[in-house]
This record gives sequence, structure tokens and C-alpha cells, in this order.
Amino acid sequence: MKHLLSMCELSKEDICGILDMADSFQQGKTWSPPKELFAVNLFFEPSTRTKTSFEMAERKLGLDVIPFETAQSSILKGETLEDTIKTLEAIGVDVVVIRHKEEKYYEALKNKVGTRLVNAGDGCGQHPTQSLLDLHTIRQEFGGFSGLNVAIIGDLSHSRVAKSNSEALSALGANVFFSGPREWFYGNAERYIDIDDAMEICDVVMLLRIQHERHENMSHLSAEEYHELYGLTLKRERRMKKGSIIMHPGPVNRGVEIADGLVECNRSRIFKQMQNGVYTRMAVLRTVLEQ
Amino acid sequence: MKHLLSMCELSKEDICGILDMADSFQQGKTWSPPKELFAVNLFFEPSTRTKTSFEMAERKLGLDVIPFETAQSSILKGETLEDTIKTLEAIGVDVVVIRHKEEKYYEALKNKVGTRLVNAGDGCGQHPTQSLLDLHTIRQEFGGFSGLNVAIIGDLSHSRVAKSNSEALSALGANVFFSGPREWFYGNAERYIDIDDAMEICDVVMLLRIQHERHENMSHLSAEEYHELYGLTLKRERRMKKGSIIMHPGPVNRGVEIADGLVECNRSRIFKQMQNGVYTRMAVLRTVLEQ
Amino acid sequence: MKHLLSMCELSKEDICGILDMADSFQQGKTWSPPKELFAVNLFFEPSTRTKTSFEMAERKLGLDVIPFETAQSSILKGETLEDTIKTLEAIGVDVVVIRHKEEKYYEALKNKVGTRLVNAGDGCGQHPTQSLLDLHTIRQEFGGFSGLNVAIIGDLSHSRVAKSNSEALSALGANVFFSGPREWFYGNAERYIDIDDAMEICDVVMLLRIQHERHENMSHLSAEEYHELYGLTLKRERRMKKGSIIMHPGPVNRGVEIADGLVECNRSRIFKQMQNGVYTRMAVLRTVLEQ
Repeated sequence: MKHLLSMCELSKEDICGILDMADSFQQGKTWSPPKELFAVNLFFEPSTRTKTSFEMAERKLGLDVIPFETAQSSILKGETLEDTIKTLEAIGVDVVVIRHKEEKYYEALKNKVGTRLVNAGDGCGQHPTQSLLDLHTIRQEFGGFSGLNVAIIGDLSHSRVAKSNSEALSALGANVFFSGPREWFYGNAERYIDIDDAMEICDVVMLLRIQHERHENMSHLSAEEYHELYGLTLKRERRMKKGSIIMHPGPVNRGVEIADGLVECNRSRIFKQMQNGVYTRMAVLRTVLEQ
Repeated sequence: MKHLLSMCELSKEDICGILDMADSFQQGKTWSPPKELFAVNLFFEPSTRTKTSFEMAERKLGLDVIPFETAQSSILKGETLEDTIKTLEAIGVDVVVIRHKEEKYYEALKNKVGTRLVNAGDGCGQHPTQSLLDLHTIRQEFGGFSGLNVAIIGDLSHSRVAKSNSEALSALGANVFFSGPREWFYGNAERYIDIDDAMEICDVVMLLRIQHERHENMSHLSAEEYHELYGLTLKRERRMKKGSIIMHPGPVNRGVEIADGLVECNRSRIFKQMQNGVYTRMAVLRTVLEQ
Repeated sequence: MKHLLSMCELSKEDICGILDMADSFQQGKTWSPPKELFAVNLFFEPSTRTKTSFEMAERKLGLDVIPFETAQSSILKGETLEDTIKTLEAIGVDVVVIRHKEEKYYEALKNKVGTRLVNAGDGCGQHPTQSLLDLHTIRQEFGGFSGLNVAIIGDLSHSRVAKSNSEALSALGANVFFSGPREWFYGNAERYIDIDDAMEICDVVMLLRIQHERHENMSHLSAEEYHELYGLTLKRERRMKKGSIIMHPGPVNRGVEIADGLVECNRSRIFKQMQNGVYTRMAVLRTVLEQ
């Protein structure tokens, strides 16, 4: 695995290898790069948790991080993404982490560059490290995936997380259901589930952020109406299955996708996901750098 | 002291402890964190000297610094400051330095987060590390505070420095006077002093920057008029008490608060203050991290 | 050499000393600063390769880099460049790398500051580290400069590279010719050469980027017309002298200054230049820091 671009490229063995390595980092195992290695984080869209999580993972691995402000770069002078990456490669950068608004931006790059690429989100496409950290969080909780019922609820049409996760979870033996506004769901109708039914049967309730910034006419619903119809309300949480957990990739719109008081409740793994993200990204970075 | 948020929270002993530690760092003493520690500088308002001073202090202490561009973060997606800090905490950040335009932004955070917080300026509120570095500079010069006459002159109404400093200096035994445009002074009338009288009696003449960016209708005065009436002119400097010093938190409006030629004169401790700032911030960071 | 500001200040011996040191860094020689040293990169204009190249060079030398976002600094509050540099000096910064749109911005600074300055481009003025890396690339290829024919082709009027390079190359014994739109050429007429003639006689064909961002009415020519008249077309490349090389400081406007397919052809040293830039800048930084 030279690059990590989408979940589809990963076999079950690849996934388990990364999760095992993430586990061992979390238990305190360390790794030292065989020589000084350089990373760049190229974020063309705003990000807090993904960017800082990669920055942290890189430092914990002992990589050197070269700062790159996309808003102050030669991209303003019309340079293409490919030429920017090749420049970084010529300068000696070993791995480039990229978030870009264009779906599959990486297709045009992956066979042309020698530096390793890690996709940190491509438009409405994939977000494989988020998916891996979600899988890591679920496996930590349940020991595996086989037979687990997972509901992915909310803004499905714009979600990189929904796509990456549903493919991987299904491949690993989980049953994936979807809920939320029907007009945002384009999948197999028998996979659609009413949110209230999901509460009864699901081991994992994974909420998605409403991406206001990608919706032109988001919906005719107010935040309160959305919360009542499709959100995880206090009332719904009380009906959740015993031992089940709540996940959300963040940032949370409190009181919309999830009741404010549930963000830090006992079932919530929302901050645990962020914590796990650092170790998962350490595993991904080490994996591509060791190829 | 888990956080450093305002001068009011510090006892005389706390202050002296920090200044002693700053002194020892300045004399070459070093400290190594017991494990890898991570810092983030969250600056929501422009800053040169405070931000670079913290960045320097963190590196001199051997902390790892995770970059955070506030203009490219999830705050653009509507995330609250509290959720941003909790995210950083989950990711493993040990100390967050914050400058924010909202006064007392930290009240809503301080009991909810595990990560250490250092206030680097809250709107027109406090700026405790500036105050500590000013105290450090004065103590270095005079050996103590008792009986010293200190004039704080200028844009009192918008100044974080004026508030933080006057409280601390009074508590430490100095006599604090204020001068500048009367409409900017809201304190005890017997503490107001004419700038020309201040020259005769004060050991420390501390000038404040006119914060054009916070004044809507700054004043009816031109820069030249302000300088003549309330600024440290060449003529006034000649009447300053023997052994007295000039301070200014920077950035200086040369020719307004202070004559251009005085910024680097013998009495000026303006660049000394910046130098001292690094050691004072090292002491503050170490103090909160050792709790 | 306390600062590196323009090529004019460098003797032939200075240049050869820097190139020799760059060579030795490239062959794996390392250097460790005698104490912790701090660098700041102050870029007031967009840059990818120069900025990341300096960031890389600084880390490879083991310097600590203090981040500085010019768009979030006190320069917004009206602070002068001189006061910003003096602040950085007071804080303990050892070397400041500056790109600024004002030509010769450094004249007002160079005798007033103690910190070392490295010019990374001043408006339409000089860009000495680009020039040094170009010289390094040429010397690597040909072993020296004496008698080499070098054509500098394109946007001569706005090019820092053209100025820096032509002075240095002439001093080192090369014959420098210019080509491109005549209205952009202000030099000695006998140095102007038709691009097709340049192909026959030149060892080095150095193309310059059209700086759209500096042209108000760039020209009456379309990109295609420019390419046909003044660009390195596939047809022209076939007529290039045996053993001759193609250079370009980047970023390349593919299909304008140079045919897309030639950017990575056998003659092209474009990515080699970027690679060499890191080692050349390591040599420059070490040289000024050792003064």
C-alpha cells in the first residue's frame, strides 16, 4: 500500500493490519523512522480535528512536518495540484496528506508521484482515515464486526464518512442501515430504516453532521424540526439497545443531529473517536512510509 | 494553578514564584518535560510578539507545538470554542494558549476542560502574561515593587494591559497613577495624574498603544495633537526622574504614544520587555504543566 | 557575509564557497548548530517552492522554526517591517528569511538589525537564493561557467531571477543572452537574441515564468501565440544543442513558456533545480549563521 486513497482499495487483511498497529501504538508501542522523514499537510478545506490529528500523529511518529498554507501558495499563481506535489517531492517530502474539495482528485496523481499520498477527504467522496478510526472504535468496543447492526443517520448524500464506512463495515460482516431524510438517501431501499426502529436493534448509532456549507437549499426544515424527526433526542437515546454506542465524526451541531446533553453521555464515543484517530493515523502513516 | 487566566487569581506568592522561575530560565537554567508534551496556540486576533513569544517559549521548553490556523478551522463550520478545546484535549494536547476577542471567554471553559489554558488576551479584558513580563522587567530594574511610582498612560479604556497591571502592581505595593485622555479613564479620580507631573515623580512610565482597531471614533485628535498632549515627547523625557524607565507593550505607534527617537533610548525597556516575555512565558507554561 | 540580500554583494569566492558547501550537504555531509538556533520565514507574497524549500533546509540543519503568518500579524495593526524584525530579534530569533513585494526593502534594515537576514525575493528586484541554486545546477552539469552560452527567455522586465542570474553568470565568465518579447527587454541590444538562434548555440535555456499577477496589461498575445513566438515548443527543443539543458524557476505555466511534454524531458533540470534549492539554502543559512 503505497498510498491510502479510499477504503475500496483495502482488503480485510489490510484493514486488520492497520487496526492492530493502531492498537499497539495506543498501548504505548513506539516506532522510529529509519531516517529523517518529512510530511506535509495540504488542506484546501477547513478542518480542525482531521488536520490537528494528523499533525499530532506525525509528531508522535517523529516525522518532521513542513508547514504549507494553501492560501499563501503558488496555487494562487495557477499551479496545478500535480505540480505542487511534484515540487514537494523534489524538495524531499516523503508523505503528503491532502484534503481537497474535488472528488477523486487523487486519480490523476497516484501513478505519477513518488511521494506517498494519504487522502484526508475528497469533496463528497471518501475519507478513509475517518473510516479506519471509526472501525478501530467499533472493534475496541465489540471485539469485531460480524453481525453488528450499524445505523448511519443523517446527511448521507454529502457524507464522505457514510460512503467509506458502509463499504468497509459490510465487507467486514456488519449489517449497515441508513436513516435520516429520505431525499438524502440514494442507496438500496431495503437498507433504509426508520430512526425509531434503529434505536431498538442497532449496536452502533453513527450520526452524521449536516454539512450546511455543502447544502445550497439545505432543507425546508428548521434545526428543531430536523432534531425531532431525524436527530438523536434524549427520548430516543433511552430506547437504545443495551451496550450500544453513539458515534459522530464531528464537528457536532449540538441540538441538531444529537441532543446537547448526549454528546458526553456514557454511550457516546465521540471524543474517544478523536483520541483513536491519532493512533489510527500513526498506523496509516507508518504503513505507507514503510512500503 | 491549573490555568493562567487573569492576574486576579494570582497571589503575591504565585507571582513571585513565576518571576523567580523566569529569572532562573533567563540565567540559563533548563527544564525538560517528563514526557512528550503538546501545545497549541489558538490566536483569534492578530498578534506578532505575543504569539511568536509563546512559540519560542514552547520550543525552548522542549514542547511539541501543533499548528492551528484559526482562519482555516472548523470554527468556520460553526464549532464552538468549547468543542474545539475538547477536541484538542481528546487528541492529546496538554496546554492551549488562547487569544480571543470576547472578554472572559474562559469563564465558560475553565471548569470543563482537562487541558491547561493560558490566556493570551481576552478582548478588552486581561492579558496576564504581558502583565507578568512587565512585572519581571520592573523587578529586574528596581529589585522590587514597594513604594515605586508607576504611571500608565494612554488608551486606558481598551487596554488589557492597564487592567492586569494596575491590579497586580497595587497588590505588590507600588503606587499606580493613570494619565492620558480623561474620557478614556474610568477609575478613581485621585489616581489620575497630569502627564507632566508624572514625569517628575514616576519610576516607571508605561505607555499604552492606541488601539485604532478597537476605536470606532477614536478621538477628535490627530496623531500629532495626541502626541503633544498625552505622548512621551523628547521634551518630557528630559524631565523624567533619574533612574526611571520607559515601557510599552508594543506594537508602538512611533511618534504618537512616544517620540520615534525614544523607542531605543537608554531609558527604554521596550525591547527588553519582549526579551523578558519569552522567559516569563516559559515559567507560566512550566507552572501550569507541572500541576 | 552577515546577510544575503543580493547577488551583487557576493564575490566569485563567496559564490564558489556557497556552491561547494551545497555540494557537500548534497553528498550527505551534516552540520549541527553549536547551540539551539531559531529561524523565521516572513513571506509577504505567495510562495510554494521557495518557502517550503527554506522550511526544509532549516529543519535539515537542525534549526528551530518559529511560524509567522504574515496575514495574522501586528503588521495589520500598522507595525513597520523594521519593528517586526526588531521584535523577532528581541525574542531571540537568529535568522529571518524575507519575501516582500517592495524592491530593496532590505536597504532600510540591513544596518539596523542584529539578526541575520536572507532575501527570498524583493518585488521585481533580486532573488539571490534562486540564483545560487541555478548556478549550482549549471555547475553540477558543466563543471563550471567559463564560456557557457546561457539564454534567459521570457518575462524579463518582472523577473528577479533574470537580474540576479545575469549579473552572476557574466561575472563567472558565461555569455548571457536574452530573448522573449522585445518590449520586456531593457538591456544591451547586442545581448538580445532570437529564440530560434538561441536553440543552436546555447548550453543553458533558462525560461522565465510569465508573472500574470504583476502584469497589468500583460500583452496583446494569447497563451498560444506567446508559446509559438517565445516559448520552448517541441519543435524548438529538437534543435537544441547537444548536451544542453532546460531550466525554469517555477511555477511553470505549462504550454506557455514551455510545452507541457518538455517539463519532465531528459534535458529538463526543472525538478533538479528544486532539489538543489534545499542544499543551496542550507549552505546560505549556515554561512550567515556562522558569521
